[in-house]
Amino acid sequence: MTQSVAFIGLGAMGYRMAAHLPKYFEKVYVWNRNFSKAEQHATEYGTTAVELAQAVQADVIFSCLPTSDDVEKLIEDVSIKSGAIWIDCTSGEPETARRLAEKLKVQNIDFLDAPVSGQTVGAENATLTVMVGGDVNAFERAYPAMAAVGKLIQHVGESGAGFAVKAINNMLLAVNLWSVAEGFSTLKAHGVNLDAALNCINASSGKSLVTETIFPQRVLSREFPVTFGLPLLAKDTGIALDLVKDAKLPAPILSLTQSLIQAANLTAEADSDFSAAVKMYESWTKITLK
Amino acid sequence: MTQSVAFIGLGAMGYRMAAHLPKYFEKVYVWNRNFSKAEQHATEYGTTAVELAQAVQADVIFSCLPTSDDVEKLIEDVSIKSGAIWIDCTSGEPETARRLAEKLKVQNIDFLDAPVSGQTVGAENATLTVMVGGDVNAFERAYPAMAAVGKLIQHVGESGAGFAVKAINNMLLAVNLWSVAEGFSTLKAHGVNLDAALNCINASSGKSLVTETIFPQRVLSREFPVTFGLPLLAKDTGIALDLVKDAKLPAPILSLTQSLIQAANLTAEADSDFSAAVKMYESWTKITLK
Amino acid sequence: MTQSVAFIGLGAMGYRMAAHLPKYFEKVYVWNRNFSKAEQHATEYGTTAVELAQAVQADVIFSCLPTSDDVEKLIEDVSIKSGAIWIDCTSGEPETARRLAEKLKVQNIDFLDAPVSGQTVGAENATLTVMVGGDVNAFERAYPAMAAVGKLIQHVGESGAGFAVKAINNMLLAVNLWSVAEGFSTLKAHGVNLDAALNCINASSGKSLVTETIFPQRVLSREFPVTFGLPLLAKDTGIALDLVKDAKLPAPILSLTQSLIQAANLTAEADSDFSAAVKMYESWTKITLK
Amino acid sequence: MTQSVAFIGLGAMGYRMAAHLPKYFEKVYVWNRNFSKAEQHATEYGTTAVELAQAVQADVIFSCLPTSDDVEKLIEDVSIKSGAIWIDCTSGEPETARRLAEKLKVQNIDFLDAPVSGQTVGAENATLTVMVGGDVNAFERAYPAMAAVGKLIQHVGESGAGFAVKAINNMLLAVNLWSVAEGFSTLKAHGVNLDAALNCINASSGKSLVTETIFPQRVLSREFPVTFGLPLLAKDTGIALDLVKDAKLPAPILSLTQSLIQAANLTAEADSDFSAAVKMYESWTKITLK
Repeated sequence: MTQSVAFIGLGAMGYRMAAHLPKYFEKVYVWNRNFSKAEQHATEYGTTAVELAQAVQADVIFSCLPTSDDVEKLIEDVSIKSGAIWIDCTSGEPETARRLAEKLKVQNIDFLDAPVSGQTVGAENATLTVMVGGDVNAFERAYPAMAAVGKLIQHVGESGAGFAVKAINNMLLAVNLWSVAEGFSTLKAHGVNLDAALNCINASSGKSLVTETIFPQRVLSREFPVTFGLPLLAKDTGIALDLVKDAKLPAPILSLTQSLIQAANLTAEADSDFSAAVKMYESWTKITLK
Repeated sequence: MTQSVAFIGLGAMGYRMAAHLPKYFEKVYVWNRNFSKAEQHATEYGTTAVELAQAVQADVIFSCLPTSDDVEKLIEDVSIKSGAIWIDCTSGEPETARRLAEKLKVQNIDFLDAPVSGQTVGAENATLTVMVGGDVNAFERAYPAMAAVGKLIQHVGESGAGFAVKAINNMLLAVNLWSVAEGFSTLKAHGVNLDAALNCINASSGKSLVTETIFPQRVLSREFPVTFGLPLLAKDTGIALDLVKDAKLPAPILSLTQSLIQAANLTAEADSDFSAAVKMYESWTKITLK
Repeated sequence: MTQSVAFIGLGAMGYRMAAHLPKYFEKVYVWNRNFSKAEQHATEYGTTAVELAQAVQADVIFSCLPTSDDVEKLIEDVSIKSGAIWIDCTSGEPETARRLAEKLKVQNIDFLDAPVSGQTVGAENATLTVMVGGDVNAFERAYPAMAAVGKLIQHVGESGAGFAVKAINNMLLAVNLWSVAEGFSTLKAHGVNLDAALNCINASSGKSLVTETIFPQRVLSREFPVTFGLPLLAKDTGIALDLVKDAKLPAPILSLTQSLIQAANLTAEADSDFSAAVKMYESWTKITLK
Repeated sequence: MTQSVAFIGLGAMGYRMAAHLPKYFEKVYVWNRNFSKAEQHATEYGTTAVELAQAVQADVIFSCLPTSDDVEKLIEDVSIKSGAIWIDCTSGEPETARRLAEKLKVQNIDFLDAPVSGQTVGAENATLTVMVGGDVNAFERAYPAMAAVGKLIQHVGESGAGFAVKAINNMLLAVNLWSVAEGFSTLKAHGVNLDAALNCINASSGKSLVTETIFPQRVLSREFPVTFGLPLLAKDTGIALDLVKDAKLPAPILSLTQSLIQAANLTAEADSDFSAAVKMYESWTKITLK
C-alpha cells in the first residue's frame, strides 16, 4: 500500500501539481533546486521539504523539469529506492525516456514518461491530461498518484510514447496558431470583422483550441500572457521533428511550421509567451490582429 | 410582412435546408435544374415546385449551387422582383459576391453572400452556421429566413465577407486535416496507440474539429463517407489563396496546404470525400492511419 | 524593307536598349513619359524624340514599361499604324499579352510579348536574352529589331509564352536566392568558410547563377546594388504563381518561395535590390552572410 | 616522401578514383568487401589487392563507402598505421567526421572528411571537386594524393566542414531539381515549348546546373540514368537538415525540399536515379516533362 510520494521540480506547473498530493498521500516530499521554493511549498500545502537524496527514497517520484537533459543528469547523481516508480512530467524527448526506462529497469525501478497538458489552470484544478508511456503494470500502480493531479490519465504506449504524443500535440498547437494568424490576417485585409469571423469558425469545421481560446484570449486581446514560453514551444516542435526524422517520414507542414516557430523564437523578445509567435508574422504583414 | 420564399438548388444541402422553410413561411417555392427533384421536394415537404422565372419573384430567394459561376449565370438569365433579397448559400467567391451585390443594387435587390457550415446533418437539423456578408439592413430583413435553416446567423462584414470567412474556415480545416495526418503517421511509426493519442490530444491544446470528429469518424474508421467532396475543398482552398494573393500577403502554411490539397485532388479517385486527401499522404509514407 | 522603329519607355533597361537601334535602322523614334529623358537620348544616341502619337506610327514599336497594366493603358489611348509589330519587353502578365495580341490582331497589328533577361549590363552590350511569345511570322519579321538589342532571341510559344518563361525564370532565381541563403547560413553556423564553400559548389551539382554571381557579388560583398528592385521580383513571382493557379497545379516550393519573397518585400527598406530579400532571412537567424 | 596509398571501397566512384593513383604513387593498395572487385582493379590498373589489415598500413588511406556508419565501423575494427592520413570521400555526416578525427588524433592519425562532387565522369577524368574538412597541415600533406583524383581541391574548414558543404551542395541540387520540375510543368500546362524555355533560362538569371545539364540530359530525355541513387540524395538532404537542426536555424525551403525528396524516395521504384524524384511530382500533375 502506498506510500510516500515525492515531487521534484516546483516550477509553474510542478508547484501547483504537488499541492494536490497531500489530499491523497500521507507522506509527500518536495524538492527544488532553489530550495526556498520547496520550503514555501511545505508551509503552504503541508508537504515536507527534503534533500534530493531523501526525496528519491519515496515509493513514487514525480519530476517536472525544463528538459529531458535536466532529468537525466539529476537521475545520474542519485540513488533511487529499489521498487520505486518514477513519473516524469517534463515535456521531454522520447529517446531519453527509452534510455532512462531501460537503465532504471535494471535497478528494479519503473520509469514512466508522463507529460501533462492543461497549463497552470489545469495544474491548479487537478484537471490535467496526463499522457503516459511505459510499462502497463507500472502505469496501473502509478495511476492513483497521477489521478491526484489530472483528470484524463491515458496510457498511450511504450516508453517514449507519452513524450511523443505531447510533442505532436504541441506541434499541432503551433500549426494551428500560425495558420490561424495567416487566415485572420487575410480576413482583416479584406475588411472582415474578426470577432464575428471567430464566432463563425468556432461553430464550423475549421475550429480548434486555438480559435476557441488561444486567439481570442491571448492574441486578439493583445495580452500574450506568459504561461507557456515560446522557447518551450520551439523545443517541443523540435522534438516532434526529431520523431519525424527518426521515422524517415516526409512531413511538409510540420517541417515548415517548425521553421517558422524557430524563426519566431529567434526574433522574439525575451520571455515571450508561445502565442507571441504571431507577432513575427504581424511584422511581415503590418497587420495587427485585434 | 413576409412573405414568399424561394429556394434554388436542391443538392445535398439545399434539399434539406429548404425543408424547414414551410414551418415559418406560407409560400415556399422550390426550383432545381433537374426538376423532378423539385417535384419530389414539394411532395415530401409541402413546398411548391415552380419555374425559375416564378421562383425569382419571391420576396426572399435562397440559392445553393456548386460555384459562384453557376449563380452568376443563373442571375444573368432571370428577372428578379424589385425589393427582393437574394441569399446565396453557395461556397462562393468574394469577388463575385461584390460584383453581384453591386449589380443587383441598381435593380433595388439586395444580395447577401451567406455560405453555411455544418454539413448535411446541420442542414437536416437546422443547426447550420450562416456567415453573412452584405448590407446590414438587408441582413436584418433576411434574418428570419436564415434563422429557419441555421442556429448561428452571423453578419461578418460587407459583400464578400461571408464567402471569405467560409473559404478561410475550410482552409483551416484542410490545414488541420493534413497536419494531423502527418502527426499521427509519425506517432504510428513510433508505435503509439492512435486512439489513446487522440484521446489525449482532444483533452489538450492541439485539439481541433479534425481531431474531435473528422479523424476518428472518417479517417481512422476508414470510412471516408462522401459528404463534402474533395474537389469542393480544393476549390475552397483556392478561393482562400485568391484572398491571400489579392491582399498581397505572405501565407506560407496556407499556400503549402493549398498545393497539397490540389495534388491530393488531382490524384484522388473520382467522388472522394475531402477527408480522403489523407490517402495521398498515406501513399507516400506507406502507413495506413487506422 | 524596314523601316522605322520606335522605343517607348526609357527606363534603366529601355534607355540602353534603344541606344543600339540607330546602328541598324535609319529612323529611330523614342518616347518617354518624362519627355526630357527622350530628348537626352536623342542627343546622346542620335535617335529622334517624338510625341507618343507619332512613335506608334513606326513599323516596329518596342515598349518597356514597369507593368502590363501600363502597356495596356498606353495602347488604349493611341492609334497604332496598321501593319505594325509591337514588341513588348515589359516583364508582364501572360493573360494581358493574350488579350492585347487578340485585340491588336483585329487592327492588323502583331503583338509579341518579348521580355528580356540580362540586366543593365546585357542591355548595354546588346547581349540580352529575349524570350518571345506570339505569332511565328511576326516573330520572324521582328527578328532583326530584336537582334539589335539581344544575343539569344528565342521564340517560346504563343502569345503570353514569353512572359510566362520570364516569370518562371525569375521565380527560379528567387528560389535559388533564398535557398542559398538558408544553406550558407547553415554552413556559417557550423564554422565553414563561405568563400571556400562557394568555390566548391560552383564546381559541383548545386551551382546556379545565384552561387556563381549573385551571391558573391551582391550578398557576400554586402553591396546589394539596386539594379533590379525587390518589388519587381515580388511582382514576377506573383505572375509565376498566377500561372500555377490558372493551371490548377500544386507547386509547393514555388508557392512557399512566393510567400517568403512577398514577406521580404513588405518588410524591406524602400528601393531595395532583389538580392536584399536575403536580409529578411538574416534578421531571423542573426547570421550575416559575409 | 610519399609513399604508399590505399583505397578502400571500390564502388562506382571509388573504382574510377583509385585508377588514377598508380600514375603518381608507387605502391597503391586496394581493398573492397567483395574482394573480387579489388582483384579486378589490380588486374586492370596495376594496383595491389590486399587484406584490409594491410591496406590500413599505408601512409595515405582513402575511403569511399556508402555511409559514415560504414566508415566508423570499419575503422573500429582495424589498427591503422601511426602517422597516416585517412581521407574519407564518403558523403558522410559532419558529426561522425568530428568524432573520428578526435579519436584518431589520439593515435597520431589525421582524419580528413573529403567528399567529392562530379559523378562518375569526374571520377573517370580525375576532374572531381574535393571539399575538405580537417587540420590544415594534414590537408597540405594529403594534397598530392587528392590532386590525383580531382581538379579543385578545396579546404573549407575544420573537421566535418567538408561533409557539411557536400550535404548543402546536394540539398541545393535537390531544391533546384524539384523547383525546376514545378516551373516547367507550369510552362507546359500553358503550352510553352520546354526546349525553347530551357534555352532562355540557361541564358538568364534562373539557370543552374539542373537547367543546364540534369534536366535536358536526364529528365526531358526521359532517361533517368542511374548514376547517383535517389536514396543517397535522400540521405544527403537528411544530413543537411541535421545541420540546420543542430544550429537551431529556421530553413523553410530546405525543410520542405527534404520532405519532398523523402516522399519521392519512399515511393520511387527500387534503384532510381536521383533525377527520378521528378516522377513523383509528375504523378501529381499528370504532366510528363518531355
